[in-house]
Amino acid sequence: METLVPAAICHHTRIRVATERATEFIDLTARIEALAGEAGILAGLVNIQSLHTTTAIVVNEHEPLLLADFDALLARAAPKDVPYRHDDMDARTVNLAPDERSNGHAHCHALLLGSSASLNVADGRLQLGRWQRVFLVELDGPRIREVSVLVFGEGAR
Amino acid sequence: METLVPAAICHHTRIRVATERATEFIDLTARIEALAGEAGILAGLVNIQSLHTTTAIVVNEHEPLLLADFDALLARAAPKDVPYRHDDMDARTVNLAPDERSNGHAHCHALLLGSSASLNVADGRLQLGRWQRVFLVELDGPRIREVSVLVFGEGAR
Amino acid sequence: METLVPAAICHHTRIRVATERATEFIDLTARIEALAGEAGILAGLVNIQSLHTTTAIVVNEHEPLLLADFDALLARAAPKDVPYRHDDMDARTVNLAPDERSNGHAHCHALLLGSSASLNVADGRLQLGRWQRVFLVELDGPRIREVSVLVFGEGAR
Repeated sequence: METLVPAAICHHTRIRVATERATEFIDLTARIEALAGEAGILAGLVNIQSLHTTTAIVVNEHEPLLLADFDALLARAAPKDVPYRHDDMDARTVNLAPDERSNGHAHCHALLLGSSASLNVADGRLQLGRWQRVFLVELDGPRIREVSVLVFGEGAR
Repeated sequence: METLVPAAICHHTRIRVATERATEFIDLTARIEALAGEAGILAGLVNIQSLHTTTAIVVNEHEPLLLADFDALLARAAPKDVPYRHDDMDARTVNLAPDERSNGHAHCHALLLGSSASLNVADGRLQLGRWQRVFLVELDGPRIREVSVLVFGEGAR
Repeated sequence: METLVPAAICHHTRIRVATERATEFIDLTARIEALAGEAGILAGLVNIQSLHTTTAIVVNEHEPLLLADFDALLARAAPKDVPYRHDDMDARTVNLAPDERSNGHAHCHALLLGSSASLNVADGRLQLGRWQRVFLVELDGPRIREVSVLVFGEGAR
């Protein structure tokens, strides 16, 4: 008979997503659960991190009408049609890219929503409540986006 | 004489809370500190995660009048008395539960506040500034709620 | 020939910052990258945590005009010149300090932005997208502030 001793697990992956709309909630839950399962983690953390400044990572319910409410909330907090100094190309001198978009509102939305979410793993399962899903939030699409996922904890050797 | 070598610690717990009001800030700090202490962690992380889509985890000051200011802030950002598509039961087709509440505003509040907080541990102590406290935020109560807490790091063997 | 086996790394540091303005975004990216490098971490997490209730940690772009847009966003969400119950010193009975400031708005801003950010490390490098930078956000300065940084993961022994 052998005794199971915990082994440290630390797996990193990047998920690539082609978004299709200006604002969009992309449900990553199944992919996150698969990554945690493949890594063989029994207990620990999964940290899901946006790699962009106009996307966010959030955890909430996947109900299409609610996602429309979230769009409306963000549009109220930082409307697309008011002036942003970031979009004043006569005044800007920093970080000017050839493909620069008018996206001050999208940066504001990302600031409010946050760039990462940490989820616990216990008994070999991602801890998510009944209605909780993990979303990449596109705020200035469509674009090709990447999400960094770290699965970190203990497995059975 | 024996040398202390670090041992990996990874303890998971669920905290159960019966909330009493529609919106409420429940101070979990003492319980989180006790869980970190019981796990014997010297350095590492504590990740505190909501398991619901109408609660949040935040870190701020426990001053009752400030908590009333936070209520007012959330009510301004997403008022309870404006229409939410999530609450239009004639239009909804997804995730309909028997106990469905009119709670679009509460989901919006949760989205803005975030579903988890990660706190560092060093020298055997949870790193919290003078006024920092950890709260479960009830946004659609009263209900029975659960919080997932992972204590993950190094202890002395 | 020796085999490299992973060694657990768990390093904690406090960064001290003297802020100079009422609201200010202090770019900590170079310091965070240096701490991850010095710790010798190959894969894992860096958790950056505010130790105050009127500062926040965010990840976004370091473009000066955008930071002015963020100031404007916060001022709209919780203006400085409306009354906060937290600032009513006739009503307050809790947590009264000799150096108490009128800062209800700053607490509201901190609540919306969040107190920590977790960044992944892979292949020995902090995972940050092209425009991503890590900021301590001063919301009630100028003050002396401290940030707690935990580098936690695997290194090469």
